[in-house]
Amino acid sequence: MIAEIIAVGTEILLGDIVNTNAQFLSEELAMLGITVHYQTVVGDNPGRLEQVIQQARGRSDLLIFSGGLGPTEDDLTKQTVAKIYGDTLQFDEEELKKIETFFANWGRTMPENNKRQAYVPQKGFKIPNENGTAPGMVFEDSAQQGKYAVLLPGPPREQKPMFLQTVKPWLAAMSEQVLYSLTLRVMGVGESHLQEQLGPLLENENPTAALYAKTSEVAIRITAREKTTKQAQVLCEEYAKQFYEILGDCIYTQTENSLQEVVVHTLAKTGTSVATAESCTGGMLSAHLTQVAGASEVFSYGVCTYANQAKETLLQVKQETLEQYGAVSSETAAEMALGIRNLAKSSFGISITGIAGPDGGTKEKPVGLVYLAITDGAKTYVQRLVITGRPRTTVRAGAVQNALELIRRMTLGLPQPMCEEFTAGQPAHLSKTMVTKDV
Amino acid sequence: MIAEIIAVGTEILLGDIVNTNAQFLSEELAMLGITVHYQTVVGDNPGRLEQVIQQARGRSDLLIFSGGLGPTEDDLTKQTVAKIYGDTLQFDEEELKKIETFFANWGRTMPENNKRQAYVPQKGFKIPNENGTAPGMVFEDSAQQGKYAVLLPGPPREQKPMFLQTVKPWLAAMSEQVLYSLTLRVMGVGESHLQEQLGPLLENENPTAALYAKTSEVAIRITAREKTTKQAQVLCEEYAKQFYEILGDCIYTQTENSLQEVVVHTLAKTGTSVATAESCTGGMLSAHLTQVAGASEVFSYGVCTYANQAKETLLQVKQETLEQYGAVSSETAAEMALGIRNLAKSSFGISITGIAGPDGGTKEKPVGLVYLAITDGAKTYVQRLVITGRPRTTVRAGAVQNALELIRRMTLGLPQPMCEEFTAGQPAHLSKTMVTKDV
Repeated sequence: MIAEIIAVGTEILLGDIVNTNAQFLSEELAMLGITVHYQTVVGDNPGRLEQVIQQARGRSDLLIFSGGLGPTEDDLTKQTVAKIYGDTLQFDEEELKKIETFFANWGRTMPENNKRQAYVPQKGFKIPNENGTAPGMVFEDSAQQGKYAVLLPGPPREQKPMFLQTVKPWLAAMSEQVLYSLTLRVMGVGESHLQEQLGPLLENENPTAALYAKTSEVAIRITAREKTTKQAQVLCEEYAKQFYEILGDCIYTQTENSLQEVVVHTLAKTGTSVATAESCTGGMLSAHLTQVAGASEVFSYGVCTYANQAKETLLQVKQETLEQYGAVSSETAAEMALGIRNLAKSSFGISITGIAGPDGGTKEKPVGLVYLAITDGAKTYVQRLVITGRPRTTVRAGAVQNALELIRRMTLGLPQPMCEEFTAGQPAHLSKTMVTKDV
Repeated sequence: MIAEIIAVGTEILLGDIVNTNAQFLSEELAMLGITVHYQTVVGDNPGRLEQVIQQARGRSDLLIFSGGLGPTEDDLTKQTVAKIYGDTLQFDEEELKKIETFFANWGRTMPENNKRQAYVPQKGFKIPNENGTAPGMVFEDSAQQGKYAVLLPGPPREQKPMFLQTVKPWLAAMSEQVLYSLTLRVMGVGESHLQEQLGPLLENENPTAALYAKTSEVAIRITAREKTTKQAQVLCEEYAKQFYEILGDCIYTQTENSLQEVVVHTLAKTGTSVATAESCTGGMLSAHLTQVAGASEVFSYGVCTYANQAKETLLQVKQETLEQYGAVSSETAAEMALGIRNLAKSSFGISITGIAGPDGGTKEKPVGLVYLAITDGAKTYVQRLVITGRPRTTVRAGAVQNALELIRRMTLGLPQPMCEEFTAGQPAHLSKTMVTKDV
């Protein structure tokens, strides 16, 4: 089945909004094994809209429209599609009642304009909208059986549930093959290294596996095409095992969870807690951890010690350490981690100190140099990152992501690769052999 | 001039990436007074690509292509356009040297594949790429003088500067009318109130003015259409004065700067500093402030006291206050602000305490209730926000944005609307009459 996505809206052509609906719909259709050949955006112009529909109908089996159903717009989209597909619109009393109820629930009366949203196809069917007033609708082409036009409202919070709850099952039932995908999220191995390590696993035909690089992590999407979702799922999960054999504990999740969600859940499950001491990231790490609902169980405390004075008074970083090695050093990082752990009386202390840029770099300590340290009081691990040639936001985001990974590995008792280890009590002078890591 | 934006890339049709380039290009073209009638996305398929180009060339004067110039792709896009527009591609030694230098600067040798990026139009002209290896190019239609195809690489960090530095001035020189826009950013007045207050100002024809609501702030975009940029700019600035008369100091900038940039610059200019004490936002406020390069001049210190214990030991919030009024109260907020100011010895102390959700709300203290306090040691202002029916991320983002506005107003000595004021020494029991504010 060949599909085409058509967004109707002058605001997209003016650049006022990004057409994220096209991405959502394309991804969902790909999962269903439906191939998208074109995405088109056209304005609220009758002639151009009709021309686009006529052309799309000639070359694709399924047209998905996004937008053009709002109360302030004319009924151009649905009237034009109805005419071309040989259907008529009829007034639907039940739909009107739903729209009136929707307004009543907000304590308002329905404006006259919204009445026209109650017109739905006579031969086709309507798609309920739980989050707005405009119902979606499906038209079948009277001249070409099995060819359809699906109309959905533009606001994503209306469109997405309507697609997922009604359109997707309807399309899945028609499709002979379904796609199922699962995503393995990997920390600590760069994209190019993954490509080398995984080699032939990435060239399989069914399931397929593809890499997507994000800030400091890589996602591996495994996708299988089978007759049923269950069969495709089994195939994906079997295939995933081969990735686990190679990558082991570098795969931090097989769910949709972010790394901070995995970290907070792991801390909660093991009954441990963490405290944060941040310099160049300025609170981003604690902000990431507390994005997760329930973070208060595992996180009581964080400080953002931007100035050296704050590192000394609050975290007991020694003045000599700052003078001898500087604020951006493995020694300072280690003392910050120990300091925040003592202060907060948490299981683990973690610290970040670095040069986020764009200024403040030297030849020895360039912009992008970041030290991370984690300690459980007995052992302290320090990681040295060099994130060069990237803007401030990327340096900071990379530092946070790697700090989260240090917490995850510490919590699970996993080894800390690319870190220097020392035990408490040992003089803080770490040797300078830490690994530079690509982010 | 009628334009059409054509993105070439199967990854967009698969939903792997969002086509943000189309938004960028559409907005820029609108500013130039060039009307975009269509945005199209097509895959790397010779037949479909040629068909799309032929059709677009028939109905539009200017085609802007995005993507399809990478080293791993075949040369489909530029070859097809060259053929249709009656031009040929020729090997460009100078371009090859630039590509080789680009690799040399990264300490790598150029892969053979990249050589083909040195082919540029014979009759048309190339567009330099400072951030990548693929040059852009412009073809003029040999059969229809004054009709052009512009080819740009897909990665936004290459495409944007190429458009702004080369394509935009070239188009502006051809255009009879140009658009100029300026944006006024407004805090503290909701969109619907703005609409009421501004009324007829939003219905003008030239300049036009449109509202765009963002988290806790509204942008007013004023756009004028004139013969020259200078004339359009003068018209915009004259028109903007009427908005200043109505909104006064609620307009925090007329530049592209974010609120945190304005805050950091204002603190620096007035030689003052701020320290942060955060609960429900978990470090987001300090992370926002330190996003701005140079924040270290005005921000030395922040704490994220998620647990009550931390509020007591570190910020000297009284145990009685926490017991009597709770952690989410105006009293606790005020004591947190005073506490962090004392600790950090900064000009101002600011605090945030609230219930971000989804759990933890009660009837009296619902999810979305947030108290913000700011103090200069002498006077303390407390603001009560209720951000209901929104997800955790929105509650947190709204709290941070409003906290930044409190800092801005404090730094400039402006009144603090919708706040309760009390002086230090006064018992901390604030009356319960604070204004609930829409976010």
